[in-house]
Amino acid sequence: MTRQMGLGLFVLNTGHHAASWRDPDTTPDPTIPFRNVLALAQIAERGLFDAVFLADSAASPDSSTVVLGRTDRATFIEPSTMAAALAVRTDRIGIVITQNTTYDQPYHVARRVAALDQLSGGRIGCNLVTGVSESEARNFNHASMPGHAERYRRADEFAEVVLGLWRSWDPDAFSVDRASGQYLDLAKMRYLNHQGAHFQVRGPLNVAPSPQGLPVMVQAGGSPPGRELAARVADMVYSVQGGIDSGREFYADLKGRMAAYGRAPDQLKIMPGLLAVVAPTRAEAEDKYARLQDLVDPALGLAFLQGLLGPDIDLSRYPLDEPLPDDLTTNFGVTQLALLKEATLKGGMTLRQLTRFATGARGHLFMCGSPADVVDGMEERFTTGAADGFNLMPATNPGGVRDFVDLVVPELQRRGLFRTAYAGATLRAHLGLAGGGEMASELRVEVGDSWQPKA
Amino acid sequence: MTRQMGLGLFVLNTGHHAASWRDPDTTPDPTIPFRNVLALAQIAERGLFDAVFLADSAASPDSSTVVLGRTDRATFIEPSTMAAALAVRTDRIGIVITQNTTYDQPYHVARRVAALDQLSGGRIGCNLVTGVSESEARNFNHASMPGHAERYRRADEFAEVVLGLWRSWDPDAFSVDRASGQYLDLAKMRYLNHQGAHFQVRGPLNVAPSPQGLPVMVQAGGSPPGRELAARVADMVYSVQGGIDSGREFYADLKGRMAAYGRAPDQLKIMPGLLAVVAPTRAEAEDKYARLQDLVDPALGLAFLQGLLGPDIDLSRYPLDEPLPDDLTTNFGVTQLALLKEATLKGGMTLRQLTRFATGARGHLFMCGSPADVVDGMEERFTTGAADGFNLMPATNPGGVRDFVDLVVPELQRRGLFRTAYAGATLRAHLGLAGGGEMASELRVEVGDSWQPKA
Repeated sequence: MTRQMGLGLFVLNTGHHAASWRDPDTTPDPTIPFRNVLALAQIAERGLFDAVFLADSAASPDSSTVVLGRTDRATFIEPSTMAAALAVRTDRIGIVITQNTTYDQPYHVARRVAALDQLSGGRIGCNLVTGVSESEARNFNHASMPGHAERYRRADEFAEVVLGLWRSWDPDAFSVDRASGQYLDLAKMRYLNHQGAHFQVRGPLNVAPSPQGLPVMVQAGGSPPGRELAARVADMVYSVQGGIDSGREFYADLKGRMAAYGRAPDQLKIMPGLLAVVAPTRAEAEDKYARLQDLVDPALGLAFLQGLLGPDIDLSRYPLDEPLPDDLTTNFGVTQLALLKEATLKGGMTLRQLTRFATGARGHLFMCGSPADVVDGMEERFTTGAADGFNLMPATNPGGVRDFVDLVVPELQRRGLFRTAYAGATLRAHLGLAGGGEMASELRVEVGDSWQPKA
Repeated sequence: MTRQMGLGLFVLNTGHHAASWRDPDTTPDPTIPFRNVLALAQIAERGLFDAVFLADSAASPDSSTVVLGRTDRATFIEPSTMAAALAVRTDRIGIVITQNTTYDQPYHVARRVAALDQLSGGRIGCNLVTGVSESEARNFNHASMPGHAERYRRADEFAEVVLGLWRSWDPDAFSVDRASGQYLDLAKMRYLNHQGAHFQVRGPLNVAPSPQGLPVMVQAGGSPPGRELAARVADMVYSVQGGIDSGREFYADLKGRMAAYGRAPDQLKIMPGLLAVVAPTRAEAEDKYARLQDLVDPALGLAFLQGLLGPDIDLSRYPLDEPLPDDLTTNFGVTQLALLKEATLKGGMTLRQLTRFATGARGHLFMCGSPADVVDGMEERFTTGAADGFNLMPATNPGGVRDFVDLVVPELQRRGLFRTAYAGATLRAHLGLAGGGEMASELRVEVGDSWQPKA
């Protein structure tokens, strides 16, 4: 079969544009009503998307009161409970949840994700991230955020423990024989006995094996340690791309790192975030976007950009009508900074222009135009080694999702770039990754080698 | 209105009897299918129960391979995800989830419970417990479980932080004015700024205020520090009672402790666990229970009792046909031990008899008989100061729940002891506790006094 692209929907309150909640298309409500989120998932399922994607933030946005008082992100979807609710109200679409390795325990995360995989019949992915904000750190006993290298050391070990726990039971471990009273075969159970620098975890996980072999492992970090972790463990990468050249560089670099772990390049799907504003004609799409941009007040825009870059960079020190200096560094949003630098340098953007740019796609891939315009951009990236698919970041909900499903999906299908029906029942099947049973038994062989009890 | 009792349903895999999974009434399945759990919640909702109750265990049962291989508890419901799934597939019944304070962070727990409260429209309760097994401790970086006093110091502070985070926003904090671009009123937001021995948590919680004012706070510990915590913060106590005298003692003691915290006795509902085996006639009920008991193999029974008491007591050291000595102590299952001692002493039970006793109700209140027998026992406790309601622990699922709803509930209603329709929409309303709006504003006043930022 011809290679086809994957599509995810990144669900975020009223939408991804900083002013989405002020747009008449949206229904701003701090309680984030389940019916609204479910409606988005149902539109995406109608559009045959691989998955909805739930981000995570264990804090209200950082201390800038301008941002906090003037965006709809002071409240945020809690991903594990929302995923469970979506799982029992949808049929086929996958659900990816973000879990933060910096402030949680791997047993908790492995267990919740495995439980969700049971609830959904094998439709769950787990996006392991590290902390990205000071406001989060301060909700978890930290005066400030641990450094980037330390966060990734912990994340590496966290992922190792989670994967090990998911392999606690052979698929046939539970024999369940009422007559003899034997419920399970202990020879098919594995204690993990992990003894590491950050975690000591005995196991086994108290959840039955995954209906899809293993839950899908997702990564989103773009820094070198993030890429290395993804090359080692990820089935899907939610990447942040701006220009096509940097997208191709990222794609080649990440896929190139996989051989060292004995993995083939097509075992990992790279799906950049895509803020697409689409309308029947290019002019209508541009009008729609301009209307949104006009709703952003300039002080909010600057505070929003400041929030993306974190407190290591103080934007108030730089003149609004000049580009930012080239030598900025940060412990926060490392990938974000690189993308904004690329935009600044290549586009020659001033800080003022950069601010308007950031309130839209915040450095992510941005396309605005007719269905053909958007599909042209997607196809170019898909066919020239920059992407295996895309994670849609609608500017506004639900209109942005509906427009994409009604206008872009049919054009993708017409060109043979996207499925016309779901072929399988699990997220792994949607992504074209090795399927449940076979994969689980392959993994069992690996397990015997890599997951020996260490104590 | 006459005082009426509350009813909860403690959902546990195939049932509460150690051999439930071997009974033809049950459907043992290590994946714990959602449809089975939902069916139980729906039967309980048909029976107008206040809530279903989900316990928590972040481990497979402890090291005894006899227990592990021969019970259906190697896998266990993950409460927060199951609660979310139930919340969007039921309408009125409350859902209480257990969260372990020893191995989790209060921001995570406060956030998940608050998110569930939004998903369910105000039907959530949160039962904060401390770790109870070595197998759990070893999944969370501990060589063995922290001591009882230390666990309760942490639990006390944990509860304080959770309650503080739930009070992050005034009910009218979110103004949402599209025209002006103002989304919320920062004067109605509260940083918690908690600086304690175990936790430093800034807040605010990134979830909107609860539809029922505050989620219902549940406690289940019976030791003196557990009672003190319950007297201070709990709306409902899931107690473990054996005889009626000890039940009355517990009830009077706990309600008596509340005045010190400025609380009236009826602000806390005491609902002991009740393993009820009911059938149209007493003889049929006794037959049913005898059949279950015959399915327990004696070695499993002993291992099961050992699991309840924990490793501080080595049962293999004691003769089977004599009572246990009177001077045993343990860092585990403190309440459980007291109840088993009571049974041993008052009933003069030998270890062998105690073992058979423990595999049934494991020290909880046990009733076996006709509907009138069971209701007589419940009524006596309800009207003579031993209970405000009961948490049903069916011996087998779904039959035990169905029998209770079909046989016991109508008899309770006939005697005016239980509701004939839901009067409200929230768990707080079902329990007859102060309702949403009013309560939230009362709480706001308290907050100003007790929840000043400490730093």
